[in-house]
Amino acid sequence: MIVVEKISDVREIVKDRKVQGMSIGLVPTMGYLHEGHLSLIKKAKENSDFVCASIFVNPIQFGPNEDYNKYPRDVKRDIKLLEDNGCDLVFIPSVEEMYPNERLTTVSVSKITNKLCGAYRPGHFDGVCTVVAKLFNIFTPDIAVFGQKDAQQVAVIKKMVEDLNMPVEIIASPIVRDEDGLALSSRNTYLSDGERQAALILNKSLKEAEKILNDGERSVEKIIDTVRNILESEPLCKIQYVSCVHPDTLEDLKMINDKALIAIACYIGNTRLIDNLLWGVDV
Amino acid sequence: MIVVEKISDVREIVKDRKVQGMSIGLVPTMGYLHEGHLSLIKKAKENSDFVCASIFVNPIQFGPNEDYNKYPRDVKRDIKLLEDNGCDLVFIPSVEEMYPNERLTTVSVSKITNKLCGAYRPGHFDGVCTVVAKLFNIFTPDIAVFGQKDAQQVAVIKKMVEDLNMPVEIIASPIVRDEDGLALSSRNTYLSDGERQAALILNKSLKEAEKILNDGERSVEKIIDTVRNILESEPLCKIQYVSCVHPDTLEDLKMINDKALIAIACYIGNTRLIDNLLWGVDV
Repeated sequence: MIVVEKISDVREIVKDRKVQGMSIGLVPTMGYLHEGHLSLIKKAKENSDFVCASIFVNPIQFGPNEDYNKYPRDVKRDIKLLEDNGCDLVFIPSVEEMYPNERLTTVSVSKITNKLCGAYRPGHFDGVCTVVAKLFNIFTPDIAVFGQKDAQQVAVIKKMVEDLNMPVEIIASPIVRDEDGLALSSRNTYLSDGERQAALILNKSLKEAEKILNDGERSVEKIIDTVRNILESEPLCKIQYVSCVHPDTLEDLKMINDKALIAIACYIGNTRLIDNLLWGVDV
Repeated sequence: MIVVEKISDVREIVKDRKVQGMSIGLVPTMGYLHEGHLSLIKKAKENSDFVCASIFVNPIQFGPNEDYNKYPRDVKRDIKLLEDNGCDLVFIPSVEEMYPNERLTTVSVSKITNKLCGAYRPGHFDGVCTVVAKLFNIFTPDIAVFGQKDAQQVAVIKKMVEDLNMPVEIIASPIVRDEDGLALSSRNTYLSDGERQAALILNKSLKEAEKILNDGERSVEKIIDTVRNILESEPLCKIQYVSCVHPDTLEDLKMINDKALIAIACYIGNTRLIDNLLWGVDV
């Protein structure tokens, strides 16, 4: 596996592989990789010839009171995991490499970024879109793979790609869970043992939503109440939001027809976790 | 010359030319072409193998009280001019082709868009950056050529390309003037004969600025006063702004060292015209 820190090196290597007729796959990450990320690498390998990952904890997508500084990092371990999983190139730029001069340019998506996580993280998706646009321009990938765990991010990036005619196909990859059902997240490392146990309530509440959906329930109000009640049964869990929206437009639903995204964000202690159920859609 | 209306056709043809090893040049225009545009085609031909133009009067870069509806259009004549000047492909999309669904994504450049024309045309450069980003993603050109007449546009697009790592080289091409000195513009067609004569005052004022700069004047205040006095001597001319800024950062200058951009916008009757002098810079 090739490890590079410079944009110019990425461009040179990608150009060479394209001349050879290879298609390029990209998996953008913030590092501290887990099996969820590795499933994205696997998905990229299935859909492209030359699989690239990036590891960059992007400062501009963190709010002033968020965890940019304490976000977990272990680049050495990440490199080994990527190599073991057949990644061909990893790009690990410094902040100076990505933002060398005063940045004046922002890529923003309106409307669908004002709800769910976006409502509680102002500026977050501007930072995500801007860095992803940069990475797409650096790698010029044929495909890029994102985890369905951040369902809003997937919808926002798909909309950005559509609106700006970016020549890349966005592939979403299903949530990967631990054996006990907890959705994998780099932020799970913040959890104490007790909190780790309490965090299982997120998946438990979504499982119940899936069950009643499969049993025929179509009222969004009833589904949200069910999820909320289960989450509230856990003393360590503080709900930020429980929403039921259309998976593409993120518009609030009242009744569920064919498909729905049930998305939740909760604090378990001081750790903010998200999870979701995509119902009626094959990812 | 190939004439296409569909994005998918552009992509297919450009892909084919790239496979043949050709470099791609792009000249984005709003049509109603004049010698200024044709000089951009010539510059693109000098710098790339397959020269593409686009003709698209981009609605989102016009303000509600601006001239989108009456902006001059003559596509048939444009096609002939492009063909006669060796353009290889022209892309003439409909508004629906460029903006098929509700557009939520905007590319914006802050700070340098808040002055000069940007101060009087809120949202204009968001519209410009967004459509140029789209065209870059559609054509994936190696180079793109813009006229120096809209000096702020050149600076804004160069900054967007730098900040977002867009894989394209921006080439600015000098202002083309009529024999009497009037900078060519599609909007000159709005001028009556008397206004056409009055409009010469723009170039005359810049010529005087150049003269006193060449004679050693370095005080921005004196240069701006000189330009303003000349413009004000023409009864039909109403100044919008006269500014002296750094050509790249567009920061206001007090004293001129090595280089400067003196930019003016005036109304001649109801027609808004811009012109500028780039001093100490080879374009």
